[in-house]
This record gives sequence, structure tokens and C-alpha cells, in this order.
Amino acid sequence: MIIVIKPKATKEQIDHIMEKVKGLGLKPWLSEGVERSIIGVIGEEDKLRVVPLEGMAGVEKVIPILKPFKLASLDYRSVPTKVDIGNGLKVGGDRLIVMAGPCSVETKEGLLDLARKVKKAGATVLRGGAFKPRTSPYAFQGLGEEGLEYLAEARDKTGLLIITELMDIRTIGKVLEYADIIQIGARNMQNFDLLKEVGKTRKPVFLKRGIASTLKEFLMSAEYVLSGGNPDVILCERGIRTFETFTRNTLDLNAVPALKSLTHLPVVVDPSHGTGRWGMVTAMSRAAVAAGCDGLMVEVHPNPEEAYSDGDQSLLPEKFENLMKECRKVAEAVGRTM
Amino acid sequence: MIIVIKPKATKEQIDHIMEKVKGLGLKPWLSEGVERSIIGVIGEEDKLRVVPLEGMAGVEKVIPILKPFKLASLDYRSVPTKVDIGNGLKVGGDRLIVMAGPCSVETKEGLLDLARKVKKAGATVLRGGAFKPRTSPYAFQGLGEEGLEYLAEARDKTGLLIITELMDIRTIGKVLEYADIIQIGARNMQNFDLLKEVGKTRKPVFLKRGIASTLKEFLMSAEYVLSGGNPDVILCERGIRTFETFTRNTLDLNAVPALKSLTHLPVVVDPSHGTGRWGMVTAMSRAAVAAGCDGLMVEVHPNPEEAYSDGDQSLLPEKFENLMKECRKVAEAVGRTM
Amino acid sequence: MIIVIKPKATKEQIDHIMEKVKGLGLKPWLSEGVERSIIGVIGEEDKLRVVPLEGMAGVEKVIPILKPFKLASLDYRSVPTKVDIGNGLKVGGDRLIVMAGPCSVETKEGLLDLARKVKKAGATVLRGGAFKPRTSPYAFQGLGEEGLEYLAEARDKTGLLIITELMDIRTIGKVLEYADIIQIGARNMQNFDLLKEVGKTRKPVFLKRGIASTLKEFLMSAEYVLSGGNPDVILCERGIRTFETFTRNTLDLNAVPALKSLTHLPVVVDPSHGTGRWGMVTAMSRAAVAAGCDGLMVEVHPNPEEAYSDGDQSLLPEKFENLMKECRKVAEAVGRTM
Amino acid sequence: MIIVIKPKATKEQIDHIMEKVKGLGLKPWLSEGVERSIIGVIGEEDKLRVVPLEGMAGVEKVIPILKPFKLASLDYRSVPTKVDIGNGLKVGGDRLIVMAGPCSVETKEGLLDLARKVKKAGATVLRGGAFKPRTSPYAFQGLGEEGLEYLAEARDKTGLLIITELMDIRTIGKVLEYADIIQIGARNMQNFDLLKEVGKTRKPVFLKRGIASTLKEFLMSAEYVLSGGNPDVILCERGIRTFETFTRNTLDLNAVPALKSLTHLPVVVDPSHGTGRWGMVTAMSRAAVAAGCDGLMVEVHPNPEEAYSDGDQSLLPEKFENLMKECRKVAEAVGRTM
Repeated sequence: MIIVIKPKATKEQIDHIMEKVKGLGLKPWLSEGVERSIIGVIGEEDKLRVVPLEGMAGVEKVIPILKPFKLASLDYRSVPTKVDIGNGLKVGGDRLIVMAGPCSVETKEGLLDLARKVKKAGATVLRGGAFKPRTSPYAFQGLGEEGLEYLAEARDKTGLLIITELMDIRTIGKVLEYADIIQIGARNMQNFDLLKEVGKTRKPVFLKRGIASTLKEFLMSAEYVLSGGNPDVILCERGIRTFETFTRNTLDLNAVPALKSLTHLPVVVDPSHGTGRWGMVTAMSRAAVAAGCDGLMVEVHPNPEEAYSDGDQSLLPEKFENLMKECRKVAEAVGRTM
Repeated sequence: MIIVIKPKATKEQIDHIMEKVKGLGLKPWLSEGVERSIIGVIGEEDKLRVVPLEGMAGVEKVIPILKPFKLASLDYRSVPTKVDIGNGLKVGGDRLIVMAGPCSVETKEGLLDLARKVKKAGATVLRGGAFKPRTSPYAFQGLGEEGLEYLAEARDKTGLLIITELMDIRTIGKVLEYADIIQIGARNMQNFDLLKEVGKTRKPVFLKRGIASTLKEFLMSAEYVLSGGNPDVILCERGIRTFETFTRNTLDLNAVPALKSLTHLPVVVDPSHGTGRWGMVTAMSRAAVAAGCDGLMVEVHPNPEEAYSDGDQSLLPEKFENLMKECRKVAEAVGRTM
Repeated sequence: MIIVIKPKATKEQIDHIMEKVKGLGLKPWLSEGVERSIIGVIGEEDKLRVVPLEGMAGVEKVIPILKPFKLASLDYRSVPTKVDIGNGLKVGGDRLIVMAGPCSVETKEGLLDLARKVKKAGATVLRGGAFKPRTSPYAFQGLGEEGLEYLAEARDKTGLLIITELMDIRTIGKVLEYADIIQIGARNMQNFDLLKEVGKTRKPVFLKRGIASTLKEFLMSAEYVLSGGNPDVILCERGIRTFETFTRNTLDLNAVPALKSLTHLPVVVDPSHGTGRWGMVTAMSRAAVAAGCDGLMVEVHPNPEEAYSDGDQSLLPEKFENLMKECRKVAEAVGRTM
Repeated sequence: MIIVIKPKATKEQIDHIMEKVKGLGLKPWLSEGVERSIIGVIGEEDKLRVVPLEGMAGVEKVIPILKPFKLASLDYRSVPTKVDIGNGLKVGGDRLIVMAGPCSVETKEGLLDLARKVKKAGATVLRGGAFKPRTSPYAFQGLGEEGLEYLAEARDKTGLLIITELMDIRTIGKVLEYADIIQIGARNMQNFDLLKEVGKTRKPVFLKRGIASTLKEFLMSAEYVLSGGNPDVILCERGIRTFETFTRNTLDLNAVPALKSLTHLPVVVDPSHGTGRWGMVTAMSRAAVAAGCDGLMVEVHPNPEEAYSDGDQSLLPEKFENLMKECRKVAEAVGRTM
């Protein structure tokens, strides 16, 4: 931690800050310059992070040196984590994992048919929402437990793994019972009580980045899960909110190499939410693969015109098949399989 | 709803769209222009809002005409709502309501002493977090129910009303038992299950705007509460996230007159989170009052240096007293009391 | 400057960085910690700022300590600068200066009539664009020199000072000939060649903040003018671009107290561009005054429906008169006159 | 154009709006609904775009139907434009064009040596700044005309084409004399006078997107050049400003397929500014190619530690060679050459 002192701070103020730091069992050193003096503090930065040093008299600003996340960092673990999701599949290895399916689970037959198609195209995980976070209280809110049952049946009949979103702590038991991977949506990335609960489970957690969350905050949310004892976190970049309105979100592919430089956790990309337009999903899937991601999550619907939600960004099964073909070539070009 | 047709759409595509709209019991009319044709739809726009028209062949874009919120809108209710919070106080009338107190409840004595001071300065509601949403799992997470008890005791001894944050549905019973006003934090503005639950209660709900939420989304979240049957929603602007990093957030005071032009619900401003710097809180409180807000929420701490959270943006009691004096003058200048 | 070293940096890498710094005539000191080592550099930070230290092997990040602006900073000059604009008026003193007028100069008679009205209401500076920056090449581009002549005539007949925008270096002679204050628009805030040219003049420069410029960048642009030898810079907050689309821009009133904590230069607010809606201009003008600004720039038009540009955000003269009345009360409440 | 009428608008207000539209020679039709009435206007939307309809009494909002750009749109020209840059090279065809070189031109020998290296690796255009836009007036401002001469000499000796930035209209003659492609930097994307001047030339214009510019504004700036008579515009996505601070900018690769759906102009990506970190440049170059761009602009420096500017994001020549190898594979995977 570096504490920058104001040019006109008094000796008393500086002494007071030094005492404050020492009182926490830390060793500060004062370095006096012509234009500014600074106090450096070596040691457990966490102790200081909670002290409102910036509010103290004589302090101009406080600069943390260490990263606030530990278990998620490359310093803690320098080899990539491969998250075992079942069926012998791992997210984070040479093979990219593709999760595909409808935004919302709607009908049993429709889901089953679609599951067969996405499997044939090469997906290994079926996505589908049973509990849906909707901006409007008047919009379709998901089938609830019935949706979970349909997903389970699709798994039984196709051998696909299933991923679905957990929104409400009260349904965690149900979701754990049915899902192979638990999704935490972008709107819940900082629902800390929910993070703590999934941290207590041993199911892989698929954590979506909040629309206005920095990479640091994203990793702090992963840290909530990891520090709860669950090591299996998959990060998902799904677009951030910017001033641009032509696309639903701005897919931040910088996040892929950036996260790889900060953490050992695998990174999946969701180009459906990242663009909000089905016509752009294939191009951005290729880009995500080329950027080095470990998997894709793609919305596919047998009849997007009839979808209860997110139809604008859902691909027809045949277009998804084409996406898979194109992405496989890019995966090979970057030394991966898919 | 206006559906803009692509320049090269075929007759079949246009007919298909017309049929789709008619199939929902609505009456579309086609208007053919030289450069673009459009389909207008009069009637219940909600039916169409869930149909992914933008994904249909031949459609260039879809433009909603009606606002997505109803109960929250001025169309629904054209007189300002005054939310009765108890003690004969109403948020939304001529008198501005000031909520003040520490970020987190820490000690019983400290809270009580502070409560007396903020009351003396003119606050009528005591704020204080018992359950705290913290970016880091290693940071102080609040005293929990003990914190609620301290708040209740402070109420008993001072006559102040109390407001505290509800984060987790499982603690709603406890929070309802103790609090006069339930706060929903910025990170939970789109925690829809939580909104539904507080919509079922009859306690005033203090809804903070999410850091990346548009005003429309903000009002849709209010709509969740209102449509659940609870008419007592107080909106709170507390700063949004922008590219500027000098301040913790960018306080969007435009939101005050903008919300007043859209909704009948009262609007409170939180300049503490909106700036993140105690040295700016008084100036921005004055500005908020001048902009026409219905109240303020301000963080005050007896010794900000020792605060467990948000010390950088907390005011000393004497500075808060000064804030009250300055804001009272501005309130008078705009025809209000405080 | 603090250079944070990577955990696994080699001794050679660290030595190389130390040599690099010494080679610039600076004195680095190495502080080795358990989790991170850092190199501190006391002295002329400018020398280092241009060296790409972050790209060097072994470096994790580089943290500047000093502010990049000098002449604009409170360290350089701790008393507020009062910019003398003529007619005995100063921007930055107790009295707030109000600049009002049309977005574009359109007709001579219209301008003259309006000038008389805004003067009567209390404005002391007439604003009006002769050269207009327009997003579309097909939109009205301003009257050019003819517009400057109309402004000059309005000054002669009313005694108002005039401010107009300089867009193109080639017209600087003309603008200097006619204007009392030279406006640099938001889109040109980082047109460095233009800044250098106005830095060479002795006319007051009214510098608008770019829509995506940080306060630091804003002050660096002021520094261009100041370092050219022109001490008379007036800063203008006019709204920034965020994700919110209900308003044209997000007026960042935090900038007022923030700039006051960083610089001695006066700060004016433009609520017309800051909101983009005439119905919000009065409320936000009051808020700006309460926040502590030194003046307002407001768009007024005799018939906004017929304005060639920015009609949506222009006030009718009678509404402007009302704005002045309301703001005067707020100014008094905060100890200023207007 | 759709004009949405307020629920309580009077008949007089509606008539007044209808008259206004008719007065412009357009044909409005009124469609009265239960919740809202709307006025549709078929025809030349440009005439209406300049009328401040939103400020008129009775108007709730105004919704444009047509795109504001014409010559840049796919409606105007549905086949991709291939910009001939000389040497038989075209930007916009099957072959991707790579522009590489230092941020600033520094020494003649260094530039020449680097030019040879980037040519050997596969670049066909040499980039280098002679006039540099720098945030600080104290930073290196470029060699000016001397830099242009070095570039020309490098062209003579290597056969590479050269691209360099034009910042100031007064130097346009010099830049035209030396450069094969004129670059307009991000900060000047809305320097409309500069755009008009390059619109009068017949040199290809390389237009960088402003850091806070929407795609629509970007295309409007291209429209300035096109409407001036110069058809050879190359668009460049180089990162936008968002709340994320880990990277210098957020590279918006969505812009690639989005622009391809809106315009016939070629799109180049600059991953150096788009990330600000050399360690991420190769990954994001691969991603840009996979997204479908028509070329890359990459900063390369023989010794980034010694670069006068942008050293943090510059690649060593050997790393650039590797980038070319990796990108070539991805280009092949998407059916292009490089």
C-alpha cells in the first residue's frame, strides 16, 4: 500500500497516519520527496484495505499494490484450472466446450428435439432457463421446476450435460438436484449471499460477468465462491454496457487474454448476449475462439420467432451447425479442438 | 409499436409479419414509403413486446411507442405519491426527509450517540447497515441481526425511524420486524425475486438505482414492487458508473427532473455513494436539493477513520450539521422545507 | 513514481529497471516485500512518464504519484483565478456570470431582439455559434463570418460581451477580431493544435469538457493553453456520455466540487447540452449553482420550434427569465450573487 | 419519422404539428390509438431531422426511421468497397492488409531497419506518426516534417506504402505530398473542418473511431468525407472508452460485423490501442481476423523500452513476426489470405 501525502500536510498528520498503520501491526516507511512524500506499507495489505485512509487528514490518495483477490489469482495457482463438469469433460483444457440451447425452457418436445440437434452439431452441454430474470414483471418468468424436469429428461435421452440459472437461494436445492453446472447470471454477479451458498456446494459454478463489472470485481465474485470451498468456477464474458446502442451489449473480448493474465480459472464467452443480434453471433463466436477462450455459450431455438425470450439473438439449429463448423476451423488454427 | 421493414423485404415476408401480429389479436396497418415501409400496431403493446420481431426475416428494426412501465408512470397516476413512513412523515411532500447514519452498524453505544447527533441536526430517519454487501469476501460483512437490534434500540431512545438494507430473502422476516423502511441496494435492483417479496409486504421500499441501470430499467424494478401490491416505493439516485475514476461514482442529478417527468414516485438522492468523497458530499447535497429531490440519504460516522466500511465518504457529525444548515437555505430558495 | 515488480522477476530484470531510472538522472530505491517488491522514484516524474516502463520485463504496473498537470493545479496556485472578460466582469468571483443566447446565430433581427431579452433577464454575455460543429454534413453549418458580424452588432447595441466557438485554426483571426471570449467546443477539447494557437492569444478561453474526457484529461487540455502563455482559461462542464439515453448527456455536477479541489480555474456549467431537454434546464441550472459553479451557459431561442439547431434544448426568453429568478435565489442561499 | 403524441395533447397542438410537417412539403398521417396517437411522416426525413420537433408542445418523442447516413450505407451501395491504396493493394478484398510500424517516427536508421523487418514479416504498409496528438503539452510532439521525410525514404528503400496522421489542416499539403494513406485520429473523428478538407482530396482516408463515438456517428463522419467527393474511406475500430480500466480501451470487435451490416466500407482493427498492452495484441489480432476485419494496424518498435510514445503497447519485431504467423492461420480458417 502506498499512501501519498498532501504537499502541505503537517508533521502531526503524518505521525498520526504512521501510528495508525503501526497500530495494525504493520511496518510503514516514510519517504520524503520535494513535491510529495509517501508512506509505503509492506505486508498484509488486507488489514489496511478496510481502513478509510483516504478520509484521513493529510492524505492525498491511497494506492493498493497487491491484487484484492487471492485464490483466483495466478500468484496463488500458476497452472490453468480444468473444471471437471462430468461425462469426462473439462472446461479449461485443449478442447473447447460448447453449451447451447434455448434462452428459456418452453416445451418438453421442443427442448428434446433441440437437444438432439445441438448435440449432433457438437455441443456437449445443454443450456436452458427454468427460472428467468426478466426486466419486466409482466414478461414470461420461466417454467420453474417443470423446466428443470424437462432439462433432466433431455439429459437422460441425449447424454448432454445441463446448465441452468440459479436466481433465488430458496430454489438452490432443486437446481442442485437437476443441474450439472449452476449458472449465476450477470444480474446476480454481486448477489453475495447467493455466491456464498454456491461456494458451499461441490457443483461447478458458471459465473457471468455483471454488465458494469470490472475484471477485478468479477474475480472478487469468483473469490467468494472459491473462499467458500468450491474450487470449480468457470468465468463467462457476456458483454458489458457501454454508450453504444446498436448492439445489446459490447462483447469485451479483451477480457479473454486479460483474465488469462490474471487468473487460472477457465473463461467462456457468450456471444448471444454479447451482441443481442443473431446475425452477429457466428462472427463473434469465431472471434472468441481466436482470442483464446475455453468455450462458448450460444442461444439456439428451433423457431426464434416463437421464443418466449431472447428470440432476437437465438440461432436456428442449422445456423448453429454452421457456427460449429466455422469455429472448429478457427479452433484448429489456434491449436485447439472443439 | 412500429415495425420498420427492410428495403428489400419480399411481399411474403411482409404478409408473414402482418399475420403474426393479427394472430395476437392486434390490428396492424402497413404504410408503404419510397425508402422504407413500416407496419404500425395500435393496441396492447405488451403482447408484442415478448415476440422477437427483430429476428424475423424482412424486419429492420422494431420501435416501441409505449413506456414499458404502467403503475409507476405519470399516465397511470398524475399526482405525486407521498409515501407515509410513520411518525407523521411523508416522503414526496413539501418537506424534504433526511436519512443519516453510518454505513454499517458497528457498536451499540456508537450508534446511539450518533443517532442523537443526527437527530439534533435535523435528520428524521436513521440509516445503518446490518447486512452488508461487500465486494470482497474478506471484508466486514455486517453485524447481522445484532445490528438490527441496535437500530431498534436507537429508534426507541431517539424517536428516529430506521431504514436498513435487505439483501437476502431468508432474512426478510427479521428486517420487516425491525425496519420502518426496507432498503434494496443498488446491486439488488434487478434481484427480481427479492423485489417480488418486498412487493408482497406493506412496508415502504427504498429502491436504489443500479450502477448501470437506465431510468427505464429503474422504473421497471419499481414496477415489480408496485405490481406485487405495495404502492410505497421511494426511488434513490446514488450515482452511476462511468469512465470517470476521480469520483467513486458519477452522481446523475439529471435523474431527479427526468424521473419527475416520468413517474409519480418520490426521489431521494444519496450524495455519499454518488461521490465517494466526504469533501464533496455537502456541495452535492445542496445541488440535489436545488434539483428538486424529495430527500437525502447521507453517511455520517462519529469517527470515519475507524469506520468498518465507507469511511472515505462519511461525514463527521459536525460536518453533517453544517450540511443540514446549508441545505435548509437551498430548500427554502426552491420553496421547500427541510 | 512507484514501479511494482512482478513476484517472479529476476535480479537481472530488477537491476535493469534500476539502471534505466538512474540513467535519467533520478534516484530509485528498492523496497523488497514478501508478496511484492516495489521501486520508488523521487523527483521529476515527467522524465519517467514518457518511458514505457509497463512494457519492461519484470514490471507488473507503474503508478504515478504526481498529477500530470502543473500550471492548472492548486499546488501551483492556491487562490482561485478570476478571469477578466471585459466590462468589469470576472468569472470566478462572488458574482456568477450567465452566458445566454441561441445555439446558432440565424438572423440579425432575431439575434438582436433575443440579446435585449437575455440582457434584461440578467445575462451579461451573449452566446451564439457562427461556425457550427454538426454530426451530419447535411445539417446547417452556421453563417460563418456573417454570424460573427451579427454578434458584434448585438454587442454594440446591447453592451453584452460575446462568446463564440472557434473550430478551425484558419478562422482564428476572424474569431479573435469579433469575440470577447473564445469557445473551444467539446469535440475539440483534444484538438491540440487548436489549443496551442489559443494559448498564444490573450483572449479568455472557454474550454468545454469532451464527452468522454476524464477530469485529468480536461485539466491537461487547459494546461496546453496555460503553458502557451494564456492564463485565462474558463472550464465548462457540459455533460458526459454514459449508458443513459433518456437525456442527451449526463450532466456531471460532481465535476464542480471535484475541479474546485484540483484547480484554481473557474468552472461554468452548461445545462442545455448537459440535459438536451429544455424542460430540465431550469432544475439543473439551480443544481449547478448550488453545487458551487461560477457561471452558467444557457441556450435561449425566441422560437425554439424554428431553431436551425438544438431547438429541443433551447428555452423561450420568458422561461429563461424565470430560470434567472430561480437561480438568483439559490445563488443567495449559497452566498453568491447573480 | 414517427412523432409520438402525448396522451393529453390538445387538438390544436396536434393540428399545429401536422401543419408544421406539411409546411415542409411532406405528407403526415395521423393514427389515433387508445393509449397514444402517432403522426407518421413518409418522405425526405432529412427535412424533418433539423426541426426540433421534440421541443414542440404535445410531442412526447420523435423517432427517426431512416438512417442518417446515405453514401456510406449498404442501401446506397450493396457491394463492398475495395479501397485501392497503391502498389496493386486493395483494402476490402480477400487479402487482409497489415499496417505496422512505430507509434512515432523517431530516427531515420531505426525506422528503416524496422520497415525492413515488418515488410519481411508480411506487412505491406508502414505506419508512423510525424505529428503526434499527446494528452500532455510536455510530451514528445513528433518530428513533424522531418518525420515525413524519414517515412518517404523508408518507402523508397522498402517498397512499403506509408500511412501517417493528419492533425492540423495547415499541414495537409505536406501530408498529402508524402503519405499514401491519410490517417484521421480518434480525437479528430469529429473535427469536421478536417474531414471536409480530406473529402476534397483523392487520397485514401483512414478514419479512426472516436473513443466515445457510436457506430452511427462514426459513419456520419465517413459521410463527411464521402460527401466531399472522396470515395476512399477505410474505417478503423481502435477501442472505445468504458468503465474498465485494466485495459487502456475496450476493443469493440462487435463493431466489425455490425459495420459490415451497415456499410460497404472496409473495416480495419487496431489491437494496439484497443488493448494498450503488448501482451494482449496478438490474441486480439487473431480475434479481429476471425471476426471478419479487412486489415490490421499494429504498433511495432525495435526497442519498446526506448520508444518516445506508446512503448507499453508496442511489439518487438520478432513478436510481430509471430503475430503474422498466427493471424495467417486464422485468416485461412475464415477463407481469407494475409
